Parts: sequence; structure tokens; C-alpha cells
Amino acid sequence: MSVLKGNAIFGQSGGPTSVINSSAAGVFTEALKQDCISEVFGAAHGIKGILEEKFYDISLEDPKEIELLKTTPSSALGSVRYKLADPDVDGTDYKRLLEVFKKYDIRYFFYNGGNDSMDTCNKVSKYMQKVGYECRIIGLPKTIDNDLAETDHCPGYGSAARYVAISTMEVYHDARVYDTPMICVLEVMGRNAGWLTAATSLASYKGAGPDLIYLPEIVFDMDNFISQVKAVYEKNNGKVIIAVSEGIKDKSGKYISEYGSDLAKEKDSFGHAQLGGTAQVLAARLKDELKCKTRAIEFSLLQRCAAHCASATDVEEAFKAGEMAVKYAVSGITDHMVAYEREQGPEYKCGFKLVNLSAVANAEKKVPREWINKEGTGLTQDFIDYALPLIQGASSPPMEDGLPRFARLKKVLATK
Amino acid sequence: MSVLKGNAIFGQSGGPTSVINSSAAGVFTEALKQDCISEVFGAAHGIKGILEEKFYDISLEDPKEIELLKTTPSSALGSVRYKLADPDVDGTDYKRLLEVFKKYDIRYFFYNGGNDSMDTCNKVSKYMQKVGYECRIIGLPKTIDNDLAETDHCPGYGSAARYVAISTMEVYHDARVYDTPMICVLEVMGRNAGWLTAATSLASYKGAGPDLIYLPEIVFDMDNFISQVKAVYEKNNGKVIIAVSEGIKDKSGKYISEYGSDLAKEKDSFGHAQLGGTAQVLAARLKDELKCKTRAIEFSLLQRCAAHCASATDVEEAFKAGEMAVKYAVSGITDHMVAYEREQGPEYKCGFKLVNLSAVANAEKKVPREWINKEGTGLTQDFIDYALPLIQGASSPPMEDGLPRFARLKKVLATK
Repeated sequence: MSVLKGNAIFGQSGGPTSVINSSAAGVFTEALKQDCISEVFGAAHGIKGILEEKFYDISLEDPKEIELLKTTPSSALGSVRYKLADPDVDGTDYKRLLEVFKKYDIRYFFYNGGNDSMDTCNKVSKYMQKVGYECRIIGLPKTIDNDLAETDHCPGYGSAARYVAISTMEVYHDARVYDTPMICVLEVMGRNAGWLTAATSLASYKGAGPDLIYLPEIVFDMDNFISQVKAVYEKNNGKVIIAVSEGIKDKSGKYISEYGSDLAKEKDSFGHAQLGGTAQVLAARLKDELKCKTRAIEFSLLQRCAAHCASATDVEEAFKAGEMAVKYAVSGITDHMVAYEREQGPEYKCGFKLVNLSAVANAEKKVPREWINKEGTGLTQDFIDYALPLIQGASSPPMEDGLPRFARLKKVLATK
Repeated sequence: MSVLKGNAIFGQSGGPTSVINSSAAGVFTEALKQDCISEVFGAAHGIKGILEEKFYDISLEDPKEIELLKTTPSSALGSVRYKLADPDVDGTDYKRLLEVFKKYDIRYFFYNGGNDSMDTCNKVSKYMQKVGYECRIIGLPKTIDNDLAETDHCPGYGSAARYVAISTMEVYHDARVYDTPMICVLEVMGRNAGWLTAATSLASYKGAGPDLIYLPEIVFDMDNFISQVKAVYEKNNGKVIIAVSEGIKDKSGKYISEYGSDLAKEKDSFGHAQLGGTAQVLAARLKDELKCKTRAIEFSLLQRCAAHCASATDVEEAFKAGEMAVKYAVSGITDHMVAYEREQGPEYKCGFKLVNLSAVANAEKKVPREWINKEGTGLTQDFIDYALPLIQGASSPPMEDGLPRFARLKKVLATK
């Protein structure tokens, strides 16, 4: 192994989670320790901050604040959704990145995000290889969607799943206090993969969860849906709890949120439709059909930023993933993503492995069909066994005046 | 003082909270200890359960489960919104109550709820006095709205306020990760009183809360609102966080949720309009005006049932209020509500006092005008000083498999 001397930069990309900052803490803590790394930079708003030469000098941050990043939700450095062009079509951004890497002697690049971000990471990695600029590039997974390929699970998922499971149990109790019918439709994030919606089944496992769960993995059929709800309604004295992914679609590929919702449907820069309103559409439809009280509840941003309800397991693993990324890079690895590997055995243990960025970029891992029941309305014990270990342990941010004390970074811009 | 021997019944009424079951635990624990009380009953669905002779024998419950009620959200016995008629107009329900009280030798009646429930309690109390049936009747306050008269604050408020404050801080961090404009409108429960919406100012006090807060105490003016948002938008690079009460109205008395919302507006049995959609209406309007991304977030049921985020202070006070109700009744008091009295001094201390049910029934306590800033868009330090002590301490339900272990009552129906 050759020792590569130079500086390191870390960026956060895509939607925030409760633990993406914990990975940042892991990267910073480990990188600041390494002799071969002189300066550690944190990019403002991911790749955009690098292109614009806007990044922070992490060595100037108080170690106590870096420690607090572990329990601080959202993306402390700022995030971005920025799609790099195909380098064969437009090389502008790549030339600029090379220029900045050279100017700041950046030899270590760590990028933390979902599949779009791993695509960015992969493109930068391949470009640097092509032009012969020596640089170690490691991706770090992150997504509440849990849809990254080649990793047992993703940092951020366990915390979002814990929040969703616990909140669902609480809503279950709240929604049945009156002796009158009440249908409650919970809407959970997840465009194409239903992992997070599936986490509501952990509440059902404890006897206080949805009667029916609809994931985007299964084509949604409104008539089936209504008859399934009616069956539960009659069996349960009018009490029905339903969980749906925001991304459920009918057989023509139309989002259910588009059925009657008048919310604007914008496209973001990756071409994803801006979703919302699925639960409202369904609650309104059920109200028409069953003439009873219905309520649509969207977990909205809360499900991805509720650090007060994060999984301690998730926080710890995310931190270690950050440390591992640096260790792997220093040891000579490049062009890979750090992935989680669950060890065999009765007790949950999570180790690390490396996967090619190309295998992760833009791929999506969905909930296996065999973990969804035959009717497509619930999860099997296999899913419970998979997900339950990921939500263990309560991580609470330290408190000040009874309110969370989140990290406060100085964010001093690096200069050259 | 005369010792009154007989049985006791306790009922829960109105919307649930995170701590109404803690008061139940207090009442049950204390009532089961008292020699003068033979049987302790828990009414299913409040007054309705008494009318229908449907109540549970609490002595058959496991003491461990009664203890778990302290951290179990929602109304474990079931709640009700049932308005008793004016006894001079229709005495049917009252005669039936007297019949049931006599049949089961009920001499102690404890009723836990908001101002509508204190009205019920007051009517029953006055009727029993009129007909000369000896019975001690004590009301217990409960409401996330914090709008009961004659008490410093209400059980349930501190926990809801803690949830709202912490969640607001988390959303604040999440909503500003991209370097693009984003307006976030948070909708908080509160028909006529803005106490809970005001709790978002605790997040602002910690530097991570709304820029603008709108309470129902102040007439809402759409033009003012838009210019106030525009001013913040320009000052803060397009980042704006706004908190609104569901119950804000314009000068004609029209709810803002009615402006453009197509959500059904039903009336419940107390004639309250079913609210919802205020944040959506405002977010849509701001999107039109400012052509930027907006997001409406409704805390919905989550804010009143999030036991995982309850205030330990609130849980403990609610329990003690339950104990006190029994002690007062046994000591000879009737026709009163147990109220909180804040002691003078630099340290927060909360004691108890008694207030006449008549003074509480149907009265509403609003946020004082002098605690709202001149512009009507935020709270003063007086409010912070009032509310901050109420959210102190984290109460976490005991866990089992990493998920809350809520109380499981046997609910064995009492028979005669």
C-alpha cells in the first residue's frame, strides 16, 4: 500500500436524515486523526460547494460540536440535489472539480447520500481515474428510503423506521378512543421502495399498528383497496388504520396522489415528481364510500428529522460507517461505497464491506415480494426479523433548557 | 368532616392527551388505598359508559399495568364527546345517572376533561345536590389546548408543547438544508386559544424556530400576512418558517382553512367545526405569491399522543392531580375542579388548589395580548418564562423489543 498524502473533503447530498451528521462526525473524527491527511474540509451543499469553492475548515471546529453532530438531525453542512452531466456530453463540471481538487490538494473525497449521490460519486471517481489524478473516493450510504443496493440496510433508515413505528403505535391508541367509526390513513415517505412504510408493521407486530399496509412494490387497485378496508371496517366496529407509501401507483403507473389532489406536481432536478396528498385522496374516497370520519396523517419531514426519536443502533452504525470510509481510503481503497453486512447468527451484529460504486449508482433495492403477504396488504415475519434490530436503542440529543442542544458549527470557509 | 362510604367512578372525556392516563393512574392508585372507598370503577367512554352501565372493575387490574398508564398516551378507558342536556329541558340522562349511582352506590365521581367536560361535571354535580344524593364530585383538568380557566396550566399541555417545540426545532433544521428558497408552514392544534401554537416560540427562543407565529387570539389578515412573509423571505434568503393555529380567522370570523380548502367541514356534537387544512391554504397562497417551494406540515394527532416525547413534569403533575382529586373528595370536598397553582419564586414549583366547577365550565382562557408581540407575529419573554418549566424532563415509556410498552388493561366489566 502506498501512503497518499493530501487533504480530504466530505460532502452531504440528497434528503437529510436523523443520522447523516453522525456519519459526518465519524468521517471528521477519523480524518482529523490520520497523519496522511493534512486538512479536512466540509463542503457546503455537497458537490455544489466544491464547484463553487465553498467549504469549511473542519480543524477549526470545537471537538465537542463535532461530537454533537451525532445527535443533530438534517445536513449540518447543507445538502444539494445536483445532477452531474454525462462527462462525454458536458465535461465542464468535471474540469472544474479537477481544478479545485488540484488547487486544494484534495486526495480524499467522501460523499454521503442515496443512489443519485452514489451516481455523482461514481462519475467523479471514474473521471479522476481517467485523467490520472490520484484520489481516493469513497461513498457513504444514507437514505431513510433504505433502497440502496448491495448493503444490508442504509444509515438513516433505522431512525426513520423507529419514529414511524412508535408514532404509528401512538396514533393507533389515539384513533380509537371514541366508540364511533374512524378510519385513519397514514402516509409515509418512499417513492419506489416501501421499506419505511413497511416499518409501520412493527407497530402491528406489537398489536397497535395498521390493519392494512400498501407499498409501491405492489400495483395499487382502488376497488380492491375499498373492499379490503370495508372488510376490516365491519370486523373492527368501524376502526381502521391504514398505512400507505406516498409513491403507490395504479396499474397505468399513475400516482394515487394525482387522483384528486390539487397539490402542485413539480419535478425536481432528478425528474422525481413532488409527491404528497396520497393519504388525503384515500381518506376522502373512504369518507365517500363509508360515510364515516376519516383522517389523513402525513409524517412529512418529521419522519426524516426526528432526532429525538432516533435509533441508537442507527446513530452508532452511521458514525462507524464514517470512520470506516476514512480507514478504507487511507488503506488504499477507492471507487467504492462502504456497505453494511449483517453477520449470521441469532444475535444482530453489523459489519462493513466494500461495494463498487457502479453497482450502487442509480440502482434501487425494493422490499422483496416474499416479505409482503399474499394479498399485498401487510408484511411477513421475515420483514419484522429484518427491521426490528435496526430500531433498537433510544438516542436522545443532549438537552439544554429542556430542548435539544444540536451542534453549532463555526463554518469558517477554507481559503487558499 | 363526615366520612362518606361508598364506591368511586372515574371517566375520561374529550380529546386524548399524552398524560390523561397518568391522571387515571393517580386516581386509581389513591382510590384503591382509601378505606372509605370499596369499589373503584373506570367508566368506558366517559359519561356514556355510566349511562349505559358499562364500566370496569379497577381492583382486578394488575398494579404494574396501572403504573404503565403513566406513560401510555390516549384515553385508556375510551373517551366521549357527549353533551348533557339542560336538566330543566330534558332530565332523562340525569335520572338515569342517579339510578346508576344508586344501584352501584357511587359516592365519588371523578371526571377528567376540558371545558366541555367540566360543564358535564358541573351539571351532574348540581343535579345530585338538587335531588339530595350525597356524592363527592371532583373535576380533573386535561387539555393540550391549555385553555381552562382558573388553573395556571392544564395537564397535557406541557407534553404537547414539548413535542411541538422539539419537532419544530427538527423541522427548522431540515427545512434549510438546500440553498434554495423554502417556506414551511406548521399547523398546530388550537381552535380558539393559541397556547400550543405559541409553544413553537420555545424553538425560536433556542434559535431554531418560526420567524412568524399566528394565534387565533389575533384577527388574521391575509394581506398583512403576505407582506410579513415577504419581508422575512427577503431578509433570510428565501428561508421562512411559519407556525399557525388551526383556528385562525379573518375579521369576518371566517376560518382561514375555509378559504380554499375543500376538506369537509363537519360539525361535531358540540358544534365545533372540524378544522384542518389551514397550513395547506397558506402554503398554496404563498407559493402563488412568491413562486417558491412551500411545504405545509400538520402536527395532527401526533401532537396530542406523542408519549415518547412527553414532559416528565407534565406526567408527574397529572398523576398528582389524580391523587389530589381523591384526597380532596375523601376530605369532604365536592363540586370543584383540582387546579394547578404556580408558586412564586425563581424556581418553578407547582401546587394545587380548588376552583368551582361553575367557574371553569365552558370558560376559555386565551393567551394574554401582552404576551404576544405588537405585530401579532410572535411571543414575548413572558410566555417563554411561563411555558419553559412545563416542558422539562423527558418521560419515556418503558420499552419492549425496542418499542413502547403501553398499559394493557383487562377491562373486566363491573356487574351488579
